[in-house]
Amino acid sequence: MRMVDLIEKKRDGQTLSKEEITFIIDGYTKGDIPDYQMSAFTMAVFFRGMTDEERADFTLAMVDSGEKIDLSAIEGIKVDKHSTGGVGDTTTLVLAPLVAAVGVPVAKMSGRGLGHTGGTIDKLEAVPGFHVEITNEEFIELVNKNKVAVIGQSGNLTPADKKLYSLRDVTATVNSIPLIASSIMSKKIAAGADAIVLDVKTGAGAFMKDFEEAKDLAKAMVDIGNNVGRHTIAVITDMSQPLGYAIGNALEVQEAIDTLKGEGPKDLEELCLTLGSQMVYLAKKANSLEAARELLVEVIENGKALETLKAFLSAQGGDASVVDDYSKLPQATYKIELEAKEDGYVSEIIADGVGTAAMLLGAGRATKESVIDLAVGLLLKKKIGDQVIKGENLVTIYSNRENVEEVKNKLYDSIRISSEKVESPTLILEKII
Amino acid sequence: MRMVDLIEKKRDGQTLSKEEITFIIDGYTKGDIPDYQMSAFTMAVFFRGMTDEERADFTLAMVDSGEKIDLSAIEGIKVDKHSTGGVGDTTTLVLAPLVAAVGVPVAKMSGRGLGHTGGTIDKLEAVPGFHVEITNEEFIELVNKNKVAVIGQSGNLTPADKKLYSLRDVTATVNSIPLIASSIMSKKIAAGADAIVLDVKTGAGAFMKDFEEAKDLAKAMVDIGNNVGRHTIAVITDMSQPLGYAIGNALEVQEAIDTLKGEGPKDLEELCLTLGSQMVYLAKKANSLEAARELLVEVIENGKALETLKAFLSAQGGDASVVDDYSKLPQATYKIELEAKEDGYVSEIIADGVGTAAMLLGAGRATKESVIDLAVGLLLKKKIGDQVIKGENLVTIYSNRENVEEVKNKLYDSIRISSEKVESPTLILEKII
Repeated sequence: MRMVDLIEKKRDGQTLSKEEITFIIDGYTKGDIPDYQMSAFTMAVFFRGMTDEERADFTLAMVDSGEKIDLSAIEGIKVDKHSTGGVGDTTTLVLAPLVAAVGVPVAKMSGRGLGHTGGTIDKLEAVPGFHVEITNEEFIELVNKNKVAVIGQSGNLTPADKKLYSLRDVTATVNSIPLIASSIMSKKIAAGADAIVLDVKTGAGAFMKDFEEAKDLAKAMVDIGNNVGRHTIAVITDMSQPLGYAIGNALEVQEAIDTLKGEGPKDLEELCLTLGSQMVYLAKKANSLEAARELLVEVIENGKALETLKAFLSAQGGDASVVDDYSKLPQATYKIELEAKEDGYVSEIIADGVGTAAMLLGAGRATKESVIDLAVGLLLKKKIGDQVIKGENLVTIYSNRENVEEVKNKLYDSIRISSEKVESPTLILEKII
Repeated sequence: MRMVDLIEKKRDGQTLSKEEITFIIDGYTKGDIPDYQMSAFTMAVFFRGMTDEERADFTLAMVDSGEKIDLSAIEGIKVDKHSTGGVGDTTTLVLAPLVAAVGVPVAKMSGRGLGHTGGTIDKLEAVPGFHVEITNEEFIELVNKNKVAVIGQSGNLTPADKKLYSLRDVTATVNSIPLIASSIMSKKIAAGADAIVLDVKTGAGAFMKDFEEAKDLAKAMVDIGNNVGRHTIAVITDMSQPLGYAIGNALEVQEAIDTLKGEGPKDLEELCLTLGSQMVYLAKKANSLEAARELLVEVIENGKALETLKAFLSAQGGDASVVDDYSKLPQATYKIELEAKEDGYVSEIIADGVGTAAMLLGAGRATKESVIDLAVGLLLKKKIGDQVIKGENLVTIYSNRENVEEVKNKLYDSIRISSEKVESPTLILEKII
């Protein structure tokens, strides 16, 4: 088999066999197939696409390119959730204890990553003492005991995907549905998920700005999952403005706790109940999405969700008393208000811009070496559709330095105020089951 | 400027500016742009094509990537001819002295190359003493004196094209009209051509098997030439069987001399008169193609073409008496006949197969290190449409070894005999002026 012939085959719109796809991924991972052949191949995929079978084969070949996490020692169906990213997305912090509270095992492998705010692990580290340096055995034991634990990404998962993603990034082949879908799904499958719930964001603040494209991606991932024996469900959600109010690590932890108490922002709560009921349903802890949702509402109301969070935090060294006393979370020195310059209605909150403002404060990492300031961030006081009076606070800026002019300018650029009444956007746009 | 953005631009079907194309070719030649970006780019070009302006810019950027031959010291309009390759193509050996005899300067830069037979220089070296090791000054002096000289390819012409071709070869991006056309045209322009005549072969033995594709390529090259100020004409010719009768170095020299005497194969003569009259016309030595053709017929009939050949050979150390005594050319030890196995009409002579048979005898180079046997080769006794009687000679095999079973088998596989009468194919299919 020669790579040049396989590139030609894809270029000419023919279908590749499982053996051919395995040859490509294996050869590329080992370095037998050079980058210049792989990039020509991915560009051919950009134009020709992949059949359902090719996508499944491609995904599994990437899963097989490295280590696979074995979660079989954990009782029950392991359901993982993946979000295609957004700004101020606190769902994982809420969902993990929430679904664990109804008995769904949450064995969360998470990263730190680059971005506007830290990753799930960074956020959790805002809880004094909390750490993820636990062994695989402890991890499994904790999930079996508390139904939820978080561990850092370790091992050599999907090296083919890592290598391929770096290549796609510099060869204008990122934006291909089959390649995006197989990349995401391979990571989830290698991490041991039996079933997967996907939250595909769309709108100005999302990777997929366009709804139809987001739908295509969601369908592609659901198909791959189901074709490789992982029951998969997707929800397409609006990211035309940040989710909830908080953007920043400690601030998001606080918002997550509020939500588990039933006192969180309505949009965040709704998304968590939607995604959570799908996780509960896929884990076979309820017979319908409606029944699953009832279970979740119940554990919020009876305090079981909050108790699960406390047990989870304590088990990994965290001070669970933060749940009742937010002053134990990292605190910023300055709280500065962003005053509205005019009367009207909030018409736009450009999530990217707000995220960048949070990053300027130090809430996220620009490079791997950046040190995150867990205390800083933003608390939105208005969302799209809200009425605003001149001088009213739009955003509270939590900062550790006094001069936040640059941050303010970025925020003024990102928050648009219209003189006419504006509708609040719909959060849950479509479910793909 | 970032290469990834330019790949994306081409991927999305936008047009690249001259500056952008120059950035790509310069960066790639210098090694600033890696192979993996260039191959993604060429695949995007495969799918999206290039506008006329992009093709011209791309060609000139490749010309500018290396040295350019300055032929300004040669009087007159320098017209170069390029053939897209075929089997038994003796046209250059005929055309060079033929058009020189009517005053068109032929400053031929030629190579050795790989293939079924040697390159033009190899063939000419069948003439005892002939060599191309002359200085650039001698070369120019000889062209001014005799109107024709041949020199080996030297210097660093179109390094971008060399690098790019190697890459395209292993990334399934050879078969793209704009890339093929700009590759060929850049080499001709860098070699100093003022005007260019193209012979684009089509049919089973050619690179472009399909007539419409050959036409597209011819048009693309004519457009590039004319857009960059090099008057260019193309002819699309049939290569469904080898041209002339001879395939092999000394044998082709002999056939070329025959043709200059007016005693050559009719198809070879016709092609040489067609291409030659275009060269004469482009060199402004005649006001019409018809007038140009008359001039050529005249120099064949009055012996001036042959005299020009003699002067050319002598000037570069060759023994010009070979023209009158073919026994001075390298002679093969064995002449073996290929007897027809049945009665009928020749319906097919697969040029590739016949070429491979010649190569098996040692007439061509499989690798750069191969040593060519100038004496060996094939002399076709029948062409498509000819009647054949069982036992009659189809091909005389000129060999330096007695056992030619493999060669015979290859020839029997390549020459098809039909019981029904077959039309002889048309040689000149279309002219693109």
